[in-house]
Amino acid sequence: MAAEIVNPHSGSGTEVESVAGDSGEPFDPAFALHRGGKMAVQATVPVRNKDDLSLAYTPGVAKVCTAIAEQPELVHDYTWKSQVVAVVTDGTAVLGLGDIGPEASLPVMEGKAILFKQFGGVDAVPIALATTDADEIVETVVRLAPSFGGVNLEDISAPRCFEIERKLQERLDIPVFHDDQHGTAVVTLAALRNAAKLTGRGLGDLRAVISGAGAAGVAIAKFLLEAGIGDVAVADRKGIVSRDREDLTPVKRELAEITNRAGLSGSLETALAGADVFIGVSGGTVPEPAVASMAKGAFVFAMANPNPEVHPDVAHKYAAVVATGRSDYPNQINNVLAFPGIFAGALQVRASRITEGMKIAAANALADVVGEELAADYVIPSPFDERVAPAVTAAVAAAARAEGVARR
Amino acid sequence: MAAEIVNPHSGSGTEVESVAGDSGEPFDPAFALHRGGKMAVQATVPVRNKDDLSLAYTPGVAKVCTAIAEQPELVHDYTWKSQVVAVVTDGTAVLGLGDIGPEASLPVMEGKAILFKQFGGVDAVPIALATTDADEIVETVVRLAPSFGGVNLEDISAPRCFEIERKLQERLDIPVFHDDQHGTAVVTLAALRNAAKLTGRGLGDLRAVISGAGAAGVAIAKFLLEAGIGDVAVADRKGIVSRDREDLTPVKRELAEITNRAGLSGSLETALAGADVFIGVSGGTVPEPAVASMAKGAFVFAMANPNPEVHPDVAHKYAAVVATGRSDYPNQINNVLAFPGIFAGALQVRASRITEGMKIAAANALADVVGEELAADYVIPSPFDERVAPAVTAAVAAAARAEGVARR
Repeated sequence: MAAEIVNPHSGSGTEVESVAGDSGEPFDPAFALHRGGKMAVQATVPVRNKDDLSLAYTPGVAKVCTAIAEQPELVHDYTWKSQVVAVVTDGTAVLGLGDIGPEASLPVMEGKAILFKQFGGVDAVPIALATTDADEIVETVVRLAPSFGGVNLEDISAPRCFEIERKLQERLDIPVFHDDQHGTAVVTLAALRNAAKLTGRGLGDLRAVISGAGAAGVAIAKFLLEAGIGDVAVADRKGIVSRDREDLTPVKRELAEITNRAGLSGSLETALAGADVFIGVSGGTVPEPAVASMAKGAFVFAMANPNPEVHPDVAHKYAAVVATGRSDYPNQINNVLAFPGIFAGALQVRASRITEGMKIAAANALADVVGEELAADYVIPSPFDERVAPAVTAAVAAAARAEGVARR
Repeated sequence: MAAEIVNPHSGSGTEVESVAGDSGEPFDPAFALHRGGKMAVQATVPVRNKDDLSLAYTPGVAKVCTAIAEQPELVHDYTWKSQVVAVVTDGTAVLGLGDIGPEASLPVMEGKAILFKQFGGVDAVPIALATTDADEIVETVVRLAPSFGGVNLEDISAPRCFEIERKLQERLDIPVFHDDQHGTAVVTLAALRNAAKLTGRGLGDLRAVISGAGAAGVAIAKFLLEAGIGDVAVADRKGIVSRDREDLTPVKRELAEITNRAGLSGSLETALAGADVFIGVSGGTVPEPAVASMAKGAFVFAMANPNPEVHPDVAHKYAAVVATGRSDYPNQINNVLAFPGIFAGALQVRASRITEGMKIAAANALADVVGEELAADYVIPSPFDERVAPAVTAAVAAAARAEGVARR
């Protein structure tokens, strides 16, 4: 992709938008937009004069500090802690780019941060770490935690992401949420619920096949089982994750125990024969005959970006409902439908964690936004539907209260 | 101070401003101002529609990430790294309150962050750490460093602050600056230069006595020597730091080697007899006879807050120039005069560190803002003088270039 970057520093001081590179190619607008970053900090109180300063800083601030020292829970009232999320990565699984390191991941983390703000009203700070050691990441985030109301783990490669999330959830009393897992799972479940509703089926009637046993694949499998799906099989590069395989990581071994009730073994294609749902979170391409072998009225959610595992044109030949990860096709499975509202709801009630029930509530609220307009090309709302974040926020806050993890 | 907090949660939902507590006392306006914190994050690029999202986030962002992965220095151009400073504390030496822990320190760190923005145009993020172990603090900040353009250490107690700063400076290629040390030293030197100029003396003519051998006292002593002061003696609670003392920490032992050329030993009062400058960064009270024993035309900088070591009314009986840390007296020695411009200048040229020369340049620029209006009650500009930050920024950036630590 370096060929697309035409000396961003050429043009000696002129704005990059107007710069054509050595090749004469026009400069990519993404670089112009990213110049100087995409976010800033702002004061929400005045600091214009001595009186302002004496309230917002010394000596006035000392009273607030003392109050928090004596009643620690006041930190939620008198600082931005309860409205700010750390977006934490180690840069090992960034988009489809892989392990590009912390600095190179920053544009994505900033993007995530501004989506938090734009869609959920949640402040967020990009924290790209100079370590890929799971224990070091855990220790670092534990030490950062006093300053933040929640932790969104992002683009950390599997299987370390599972261990890091679990350990952080054990040690912290604020929400820790790996969006690549759970955000994807929530939006997938919402779309699946609506697809089932549209075609008059219950989740329990469905057998799903997931291509990809990374962060998203594992989380979707568990979450669909939690939500009551009939059966789910997961395939990695070596085929269906099944009990008879001897090459499984601990995470996949656990997956083999709880998925694949049909006891299938072999290739992804084997699993797809007669299946009701395909969920692609792997990249790669599914051969058309395998898609054709699925059950009548199947759902194809081919979420790899930019190249879906099944091209929508092919999928439509065989499937009743088609979804992708792309914004230029209908039914985009986009995490931005979930994470801003999930954190906004959790922070609103100062939830100590994000439970399965809160995630199910988020998926249901998201599905419900579609309402009466439900159709094959509209099983999931648009990311720009302004009803989404408030609905998810309210549902997550209510679920947190119902599950006893709310602290106000 | 808890007595001043009149049940901030009373009033069941009404705004705190209007709430009188159980005692009938009006609620402190500092609490009302702090409700919800003092800062927020904002997007600086639009994310209103699909096209915006495809540039600021996927797929457009991938090109920017790839470019940074291939040319790491591009992180400065295409993210907010080079304009954002981590304000890092462990909550061990917060204002005059001492070790109140990370959560209780957050209102001060947020205050610092908004001062960075207001006065220097620099974004800043409060990072209050859940560890007081020096090595753990160092490791944590090293891991955070990819996301930040600089590190402002704040309210970390001595002597750990010295070790933490030194180790971080050794390991990182971005500015690491303990403001309680160097910010105070820079502003003190600026005021001292102007006081000397006003009274027709050179720095080399002056013998200074510093009360307090914590972060600020140590840094001021070293910095005044660097700037060419005649002599400086430092006194801690046990008296003058001198080579014959056997109770000195390593930091104070180093101080004993380089200060106190006069070879004094004994109490602070002993040192003050005939001294030209008193610099108080200790709290406590200096007896009036000791002030009276100073040289004719002395300078008294009594910077403890809220109670100066020498009350200005007393100081004025004997001294030619009086400064304090308070905003309600003339000549306020306030760090906000230095740190926003120092970081703004360093970030502007992507300095790898903040050198002694850059700090001297900052102090000189700050002193020069006073210009022709120099007077006994005006040796240092007001924090709200809009000429200050641009002058300090420009001077620091130029010094960074001159000293070869600028990277653009």
